[in-house]
Formats: sequence, structure tokens, C-alpha cells
Amino acid sequence: MYIPTFDDVETAQERIKPYIYKTPVLSSSFMNELSGAELFFKCENFQKAGVFKVRGASNAVFGLSEEKAAYAAGRRGIPVTVVMPHTALEAKKAAVYGYGGSIVECEPSTTSREETSAKVVAESGADFVHPYNDPRVIAGQATCSLELLEQTEGLDAVIAPIGGGGMVSGTCLTLSNVAPEIKIYAAEPKNADDAYRSFKAGHIIADDDPVTVADGLKTLEDILLASEQEIVDAMKLIWQRMKIVMEPSSAVPLATILKNKNTFAGKRVGVIITGGNVDMNKLPWMKS
Amino acid sequence: MYIPTFDDVETAQERIKPYIYKTPVLSSSFMNELSGAELFFKCENFQKAGVFKVRGASNAVFGLSEEKAAYAAGRRGIPVTVVMPHTALEAKKAAVYGYGGSIVECEPSTTSREETSAKVVAESGADFVHPYNDPRVIAGQATCSLELLEQTEGLDAVIAPIGGGGMVSGTCLTLSNVAPEIKIYAAEPKNADDAYRSFKAGHIIADDDPVTVADGLKTLEDILLASEQEIVDAMKLIWQRMKIVMEPSSAVPLATILKNKNTFAGKRVGVIITGGNVDMNKLPWMKS
Repeated sequence: MYIPTFDDVETAQERIKPYIYKTPVLSSSFMNELSGAELFFKCENFQKAGVFKVRGASNAVFGLSEEKAAYAAGRRGIPVTVVMPHTALEAKKAAVYGYGGSIVECEPSTTSREETSAKVVAESGADFVHPYNDPRVIAGQATCSLELLEQTEGLDAVIAPIGGGGMVSGTCLTLSNVAPEIKIYAAEPKNADDAYRSFKAGHIIADDDPVTVADGLKTLEDILLASEQEIVDAMKLIWQRMKIVMEPSSAVPLATILKNKNTFAGKRVGVIITGGNVDMNKLPWMKS
Repeated sequence: MYIPTFDDVETAQERIKPYIYKTPVLSSSFMNELSGAELFFKCENFQKAGVFKVRGASNAVFGLSEEKAAYAAGRRGIPVTVVMPHTALEAKKAAVYGYGGSIVECEPSTTSREETSAKVVAESGADFVHPYNDPRVIAGQATCSLELLEQTEGLDAVIAPIGGGGMVSGTCLTLSNVAPEIKIYAAEPKNADDAYRSFKAGHIIADDDPVTVADGLKTLEDILLASEQEIVDAMKLIWQRMKIVMEPSSAVPLATILKNKNTFAGKRVGVIITGGNVDMNKLPWMKS
């Protein structure tokens, strides 16, 4: 499997520039006082479609090979089919339709998702883009921390939430090449700590964890955990004090910073807010 | 009563610079498509304390006379007493205490508020700052549209919500002096349309409306109304699509733009988002 290089990141940055926002970096004196660190929030919740994933997706789509691009041009637009669990948020499904995509539903498991995707590819001849394991996707996500470096000075650390691992792999790819002195942390929910257990064990534990991610995490300093309640508290605090809407997963880094104050005390820390797509009718601190 | 001039606005801008944020101006391709106009959102929800009112308050406090300032210096800090209705949001009360102020509660009526304030002034010798009728406050609020002019080019119109009237008066003060070609609109909830009725009648209708506001509104193009449902819909839309937290009152301008599309079609419109202090446990679209 092809491992993306920093050249791929620079190519990605040029390629996707017309299709993404250069998102702002926000700071908050309240959050600085509370944490005892200087926090620089890279706000991908303001990204197109409300999520950093547009970076990787754009890089994959606009980096299609000549034949694929010709095919797409012939169709006057690139038809997209998204394989997603039938349990996905209605807002996410609506967004796919809104952008002109179609949806094939699968069961909410990695196995079902991969089988269904393979079937769609076999039937349509489509180019398959894995959501976080594809090198084009990782190079795209890596442009986020490249921007962060242009927008802030003298960072000591960067912390990002780890889900599939595409954002953290991309962050490691960029920083290990451009600013290896910056420590990289990943933040993960205690209730879904696959990456944490693999990282501490030194090898992949969950067998559906992607290989490139494990490789991409070599330069990671540590993975920090937060409980559900800590995540919800951090999320509510960010909404209340910073006046921005972001997802629960984007609150995991702040939650871990607040429970590991010694690690970050006096440091300049980039905090990646990965997305802002929330079901406004079901906020996690409201009784359902 | 002293009517503030544009000189007072420029003085205020210099005076309050160290104490306030230069808030960002955001745009949204979704909102532009939806409205058929180009909208530039001036985000005072990101202001210190989450509200534009810090501009006027800072100008009043830091513009105190020599005696008052000496008194304040003698006390090593300026003691502040806020007269507010006992029905005020707990979040607002907590904010006053958090900033070191004290609270005297009154009934939720203009009459009770004025009587209580007069009593506090008589007993303490304090300098009274009316929340929207004080010329120092109006000059302070006027700095918001002065910044907006620095941050955007070629505006055709500016629209702000009208509550007490301080923000709209300040907007009229700045624009009538610096950019008289820009049309100024105020947006008001249909359920609380004091300003609208006074404006249409050509004279003050509610007898607790302040005189300076009426005077300050001479250059206003129109006052537009929105229903409660339209306001809540616009608020939810801004949270969902722009990923920012703002108050219901700050959604009134967008609500009126969306129901008066012909008025704003193809125009470049500054939209003042006045504040972001919301009770996260009681969002207006949630069933209570």
C-alpha cells in the first residue's frame, strides 16, 4: 500500500485550495485561564460541509486519474455514491442528497460497510475512496495542520481527536516533516478506546484498524482519554464561552487537556476542532 | 441632553480598543444563496462577555470624569452595581458576579428599573450609565459599524436588531457621517414592535422610549418585523449552517431579510449579530 509523503501534502494543498475554506484559528482568554495553557483552536467546524473530511475527499476526487476524470467529465459532474450505516444522522443523509450524491445503506459495522462498498465498486466500476485509510485522504487531512502552522507561531503541541485516524495520521505526516519539535497528541473517548489500546500495546488490537494509521501514528507522543461526561461538559463549555457550534468528538481534545493540566501547563497548544455537524434537536446535555 | 457626535465615536474607538475584541465578519455561501443577497455577518457574539454592549459600557466606564476616575483608582478598581430584573437569565447574573460586579434586583419593568437605579445612585454616589440612552454608550456601540466598514467593502445596506435602540442609534451615527449612501435597517420582533410603531407614526408611542433613540433613528431607512417562529427558524438555521452560537434577538435581522428578499436582492448587506448569551438548557426550538 502506498504511504503518502509530505510532497503529497503540498500537492494536496494546491489541488484543494479552490474547494475548501482556510478555516480560522480562534483563541479564548477564558479557555486559556481555565486550562493554564495557550490554546489555538483550528476551527474545521467552519469548513465546507461543516467538517475537515472535505479536505481528504476533495483531494481524492480532484486527484482522480486521467481515465477516471475523463469518465467524470463525460458524465458532466462526478457521480458519488456514499455507503453509510442506516443508523447515520438524518442530517448527514440530507447533506449527501443536498450535494447531489446517492446513498447505499449498510449495517453499522466495519465489515458490512466494506462488503457493501466492494459490491458498489464491482457493480459500477467506481473509484473507491476509504474514509480514512486512503493515502489521498490522509494527504488531504494533513493540509489542516499545515494551515495551522501558517496561522500560529511557536506551537509546543497539537492535539486532535482520533476517530478513524485520518486526521491524526495527517497531522503526524505534516508535523514530523515540517515541525518535528511539536509534540502530537490524540484524544479519544474512553468508551471507544481502540486506538489507545493499540498504541499502548505497540500493535494493532482491533483487527479492523487500518495499517496506514498505525504506521502514521509512529510520531505520536501520546493518546489521552476522556469520559462521556467530561466530553459533554467540554462541549457545552465551548458552545457557551466560545460561541461556536461543534460536535461531541471535537470536544474530546479540550476534555483531555483539562484533565491533564500538568502536561500542557504554559504550553502553546493547537487544538483541532474537527467538525460542527450536530443534530440541534438532540444535544447531549438535554434530557431526551 | 447631550447628543453624541462622530468625534465621540472616534474617541470611543481609541479609548475602548484595549478592552474589546475586533470581532470577525463571517460570510456563508449557503446564506447568500438562500437570501439572494451577499451577507456579511459582524459577529459581536464573539465580543468580550458575548455581547456588543461591552463597547458602550467600556466607553462609559473608561471615559469617567477625573473625579470619578480618581475615586475608582482609590478603590483599586471600579466597583459596579448592576440593576437588573429578578427574572433575568441566571447566566447573566453569574456573568455579573464573575466579572466582580454586584447586583440589585428590581421588577421586570422600565419604571421599577429606573426607580431602583435612582435609589442606588442616591445612596452610593455612583455614576449612572443608562444601558442604551447614555450618549457615551451610543458612541461606544457606534464603533461596531465603524469596524464593519473597515472590514468590508461596498456595502449597500446594514441591518441590526433593535431592542433598547443603542446599537441602531450608534449605527445611524456612524454611517450617516462616514457612509451616508449605505441604507440602514432595523429588525424588530413583531411581538415587541414599539420602535416600529413609533417609527411609522413619526413620533414616540410607548412613553418609555428614549428621546435620543428617536433622534438617532432619523437616518433609518425602515424597520422590518419578524414573527417569533420566523426568528426561531432563522436562529436555528444560523447555528446549523454557520456553526455559531447567537441569541434569538440576533436572528431577527436574518429573519426579516428572508421575508423581504426583494428589498435586499443582489445587495451587499452587513448583518449585525449582537450577542451570543443563550441558556443552553432552554433553546427555543426544544420542547420544554
